[in-house]
Amino acid sequence: MNHPALIAVDWGTSSMRSALLGADGTLRDERGGGPGILAVPADGFASDLLAHIRPWRSQHGPLPIILSGMIGSRQGWVEVPYLTCPASKSELAHHLYRHATDSLGPVHIVPGLSIDPPGQAPDVMRGEETQIVGVLDGSSSEDGLYVLPGTHSKWVTVENGRITHFATYMTGEIFAALRHHTILGRLMPEGTDQTDTTTFKQGVGAGSAEGPPGALLQRVFATRTLGLFDRMPLASLSSYLSGLLIGAEISAAFADKRLKRHFTIVGSAPALAEHYSAAARILDLETSIAPASCAARGAYLLARAAGLIKGTSS
Amino acid sequence: MNHPALIAVDWGTSSMRSALLGADGTLRDERGGGPGILAVPADGFASDLLAHIRPWRSQHGPLPIILSGMIGSRQGWVEVPYLTCPASKSELAHHLYRHATDSLGPVHIVPGLSIDPPGQAPDVMRGEETQIVGVLDGSSSEDGLYVLPGTHSKWVTVENGRITHFATYMTGEIFAALRHHTILGRLMPEGTDQTDTTTFKQGVGAGSAEGPPGALLQRVFATRTLGLFDRMPLASLSSYLSGLLIGAEISAAFADKRLKRHFTIVGSAPALAEHYSAAARILDLETSIAPASCAARGAYLLARAAGLIKGTSS
Repeated sequence: MNHPALIAVDWGTSSMRSALLGADGTLRDERGGGPGILAVPADGFASDLLAHIRPWRSQHGPLPIILSGMIGSRQGWVEVPYLTCPASKSELAHHLYRHATDSLGPVHIVPGLSIDPPGQAPDVMRGEETQIVGVLDGSSSEDGLYVLPGTHSKWVTVENGRITHFATYMTGEIFAALRHHTILGRLMPEGTDQTDTTTFKQGVGAGSAEGPPGALLQRVFATRTLGLFDRMPLASLSSYLSGLLIGAEISAAFADKRLKRHFTIVGSAPALAEHYSAAARILDLETSIAPASCAARGAYLLARAAGLIKGTSS
Repeated sequence: MNHPALIAVDWGTSSMRSALLGADGTLRDERGGGPGILAVPADGFASDLLAHIRPWRSQHGPLPIILSGMIGSRQGWVEVPYLTCPASKSELAHHLYRHATDSLGPVHIVPGLSIDPPGQAPDVMRGEETQIVGVLDGSSSEDGLYVLPGTHSKWVTVENGRITHFATYMTGEIFAALRHHTILGRLMPEGTDQTDTTTFKQGVGAGSAEGPPGALLQRVFATRTLGLFDRMPLASLSSYLSGLLIGAEISAAFADKRLKRHFTIVGSAPALAEHYSAAARILDLETSIAPASCAARGAYLLARAAGLIKGTSS
């Protein structure tokens, strides 16, 4: 049961990462460093994918291929319609999009998810749903709140094994825009930002304090005045700003979930996961950190549920 | 009383604007287009100012000079200590900073204002205090709430003729950073943004809805999804984003001022003032728009109160 049986590709805007999986789900090999979709010409997806997985293909022959992430977006290989929330693993597996290719045979693209609550703006995800499936791993006891932090943090609610709600917070991208393209960055020393735990915590406190949404437009300005008034080392201002935005994000994500005091951090770099854990502790919340390989695991579970892997069934 | 008696210079980060005023405050002449302080070398302020006002000096001889704005900042000619809030016209006039120069004689720089509330970050302004003095114009009946919208909007509370509180919202700069340096701008057509009144109003509604500060990190993402879902013309997305941020700003500025339903818009371009007026109407607030020349008027009133103008007294 441990022979290679699936290639799972997490293909995002700026990166591509592949996993070779055994029929029982064992991770046999991994490859990173492939081109993100924005670096691939419209007619180049098949050849770039083939180049990326050629060593595996040479050694093991053709294998089923499952793709997740922005590869299924309008800017990707083929636009796969979003599945509407709520959605379970088996519903996602049922809606895998089969895309025929000459050189690779069919590839299977995981649909993204959309949510369209009345009176609110719609929201979307592509790729995160596969990571969540990997974290849940078939268990229906894993209900709760999950965050996939980063450029666009996704907060995902799981109930009875289904993704029932999610919301995107542009925290990482707004941090970068403020850091590099506003006056707030002017006082910050050039070079890589180092985390200052003390000022990060001060930022979390300031960002999570009560107030209306527009208060954030005012609070971020403190990143400048605290530096001007020598209340904080200039090298620590970026930690303050990061804490402020992450604190605001987490407390907003929990604003209508007062009874829950826990969330799971999924699929982020260890340093970023630690930032979210540290912020959570300040806000009196508990966290768990999901295993790093959940994207490949989720793709495997979806492929198995869809019957793509020989000799197994969901 | 109408002979030229004062040169008032509004000298900011990116622009310089001067006024020639009569002893009775009449505006005799104006000049724009001078270099902002960031374009002036550290030893070049006197010569650049002299070049800018030379025609007046040639015609009328030496006149008292009063400067306001970022010229008194660390990046300006000389760093003038902030006056602490609350502050009145006469307190500002009393703290004009006399800076001796070889070529121009003494110049007088209006101090900026700082506020440092316990448990909150400090805040600062330079230049806006002079505009507020010009709007009040010696009247003590003009108590109320004033906004100077723009890159860094300042919301200023005046009570009994004194500036008692203010707060900076980075609305304009954050709009520009989101528009030009995040994914939100990707769906927006290149070129000058035209205002779409309908989507601007929708943005105001979304931005002013109740919620915690971090909700703003989520709400701005709707600028993308509303475009992706064809709910809004792509050319109107920038109006939506502008309305969202301005709506959030105004409702936050009023969050702890529930009894007041009016504010005065000071010193902004007519189009921007109209945006703030339109947003206010949606939020059931009333507005007035102050005259455009309040910076020169404020400088005149401060100079007169400081006894810089011969033959007058405050």
